[in-house]
Amino acid sequence: RMKKIAVLQGDYIGPEIMHAGLEVLKLASENTSFKYRIYNYPFGGEAIDRYGEPLPEETLKGCQDSDAILLSAIGGPRWDKKRVRPETGLLEIRKHLGLFANIRPTMINKVLAEKSPIKAEVLEGTDFVIVRELTSGIYFGKPRELDAKLAIDTSSYKAEEVERIMRVGFEMSRHRKKHVTVVDKANVLATSKLWRKVAEKISEEYSDIKIDYCYVDAAAMKIITQPNSFDVIVTANLFGDILSDEASVLTGSLGTIPSMSVGVRGPSLYEPIHGSAPDIAGEGIANPISMILSIEMMLRESFKEYEIANNIAQAVEKTIEKRFLTPDLGGVATTNQVVKEVIKNLKG
Amino acid sequence: RMKKIAVLQGDYIGPEIMHAGLEVLKLASENTSFKYRIYNYPFGGEAIDRYGEPLPEETLKGCQDSDAILLSAIGGPRWDKKRVRPETGLLEIRKHLGLFANIRPTMINKVLAEKSPIKAEVLEGTDFVIVRELTSGIYFGKPRELDAKLAIDTSSYKAEEVERIMRVGFEMSRHRKKHVTVVDKANVLATSKLWRKVAEKISEEYSDIKIDYCYVDAAAMKIITQPNSFDVIVTANLFGDILSDEASVLTGSLGTIPSMSVGVRGPSLYEPIHGSAPDIAGEGIANPISMILSIEMMLRESFKEYEIANNIAQAVEKTIEKRFLTPDLGGVATTNQVVKEVIKNLKG
Ligand SMILES: [Mg+2]
Ligand SMILES: [Mg+2]
Repeated sequence: RMKKIAVLQGDYIGPEIMHAGLEVLKLASENTSFKYRIYNYPFGGEAIDRYGEPLPEETLKGCQDSDAILLSAIGGPRWDKKRVRPETGLLEIRKHLGLFANIRPTMINKVLAEKSPIKAEVLEGTDFVIVRELTSGIYFGKPRELDAKLAIDTSSYKAEEVERIMRVGFEMSRHRKKHVTVVDKANVLATSKLWRKVAEKISEEYSDIKIDYCYVDAAAMKIITQPNSFDVIVTANLFGDILSDEASVLTGSLGTIPSMSVGVRGPSLYEPIHGSAPDIAGEGIANPISMILSIEMMLRESFKEYEIANNIAQAVEKTIEKRFLTPDLGGVATTNQVVKEVIKNLKG
Repeated sequence: RMKKIAVLQGDYIGPEIMHAGLEVLKLASENTSFKYRIYNYPFGGEAIDRYGEPLPEETLKGCQDSDAILLSAIGGPRWDKKRVRPETGLLEIRKHLGLFANIRPTMINKVLAEKSPIKAEVLEGTDFVIVRELTSGIYFGKPRELDAKLAIDTSSYKAEEVERIMRVGFEMSRHRKKHVTVVDKANVLATSKLWRKVAEKISEEYSDIKIDYCYVDAAAMKIITQPNSFDVIVTANLFGDILSDEASVLTGSLGTIPSMSVGVRGPSLYEPIHGSAPDIAGEGIANPISMILSIEMMLRESFKEYEIANNIAQAVEKTIEKRFLTPDLGGVATTNQVVKEVIKNLKG
């Protein structure tokens, strides 16, 4: 059946990189059995300009009715003084779709790794994802209190919240290296003890997948010293926030990292981790790699189109190796030149 | 006046490295105005063997009555099956002395940095300390609840707890690079908002010192990408736990990192961050550097003996540069050879 892809092209460099990504998708799926249709919806700043709100009803309906959602990047100085902020749209769409897990891959490309603070020999073979819980934990727990003398934050997790995110991790690991690492602080925290108990239980359903546990402080070391020892890291909201930012610098460039958000029901959402780069919008030099790899991730995770995904992945790798790089990566290529080279490198 | 130093020589390699450190202290303070006396007390496993408890009354009294406390490392398999654990002594002494701040330096030695996962050019000029709050935050907050369906942890901070640790950070920075960075998550957490408010207030008393703020996820990146941009990081218990372990791998060896714990009243305690290494105890090859640098830190922070401390620091650096390294650092030197070389490198 024809897959429906909701496209939110966003603001500033958003439309440029989305256009680039969709070009690659089109060529890569030509002459394959993968059929899709693109549905464009206004979102973020663009939607505020046209409809006065960042997430119009039509956009939400379209997203809910789709098989996957592609988002580029939204927001920027144009809406700084508006009553409604583009970012509000993100919060709303997360809530409506029940996006509870955020997933970021860390993969190493040798050319980009020249810019990494980590030594090349340490990075070799690194290929892991961090599955971060997104709707609970200490960022959302109640009570939260603050007066002049005392402040209180609460972290809480329900077993069912841990269960669903553990399943995301195990499912993801199944078509990877079959190794899940739960990162927690179970020697101290009650929430971490619950995480371990639930993880242990769910792991029985996945007997082909190895599970181990790592304290968050040890994990912060190991991400630097032995990044290639991980496959799928599953962790709570706060720990995931810290560790996925730490891991992002390993690659040598934030401009190439995609992400996926998984919903309780309905489609997943794919987007670059970088922003809308107002300073270079319209110049035709925005780096399209993170958007292209977001599309690759969509093909893999939402549509199980591993062949097309692998084809795009190797084409991107070849393009970077041939040093077709935009200025943010130290090169002189335009967005168009990068896209053309990626398409050239696709296997017939 | 003659300074009293309480010495807890500890278990396994403990006595070996303590002996080594005290040799260096003796020679380094010869012909200076710094006068001290050593008081040895049983502590940890040794104290369990002799008195049936890890922190005998006499030891606690001696520590409370001292100007500074040196601890090597305690515990090990010999007490694994005992009713009382050596580590209980640590918890008790922390409580009795009110040790509320733990401080770890991150300094780079070029020879050891060859073993660091981080590139040499990134590490250049790195010299910072992390001041971690040790008695409050999410590791101690109540309520803490755990049943099959739900778990809760509580993080709380009192303004006075933040105030006293901010002062530790500012005081420390005064004889360093005069730059304090508060690491928090003030865009979300109430406790972090309190930290910022208190930090802002205390910083008015230290107008010669620059203060800035960094979110914990950004700090986890910056410790790897720009470690030389920090001087004194002050942060909450959990964040400090994660970040100081992350920072420890920058140096290339845990065997050289000292630490300091600051009390509400009375003396501070200095100790290596490494353990009692039962596997190499008695072989005369234990690495004494972390213990020697703990003594250096004591001279600097408790006694303001900057000249003697600097003399020891440069002697250690020279010793490492000449590759007098114990096996854990990839060398073949014995503990004694390292100590003799450090002493040889002291400036007359
Ligand atoms: Mg973050
Ligand atoms: Mg730790």
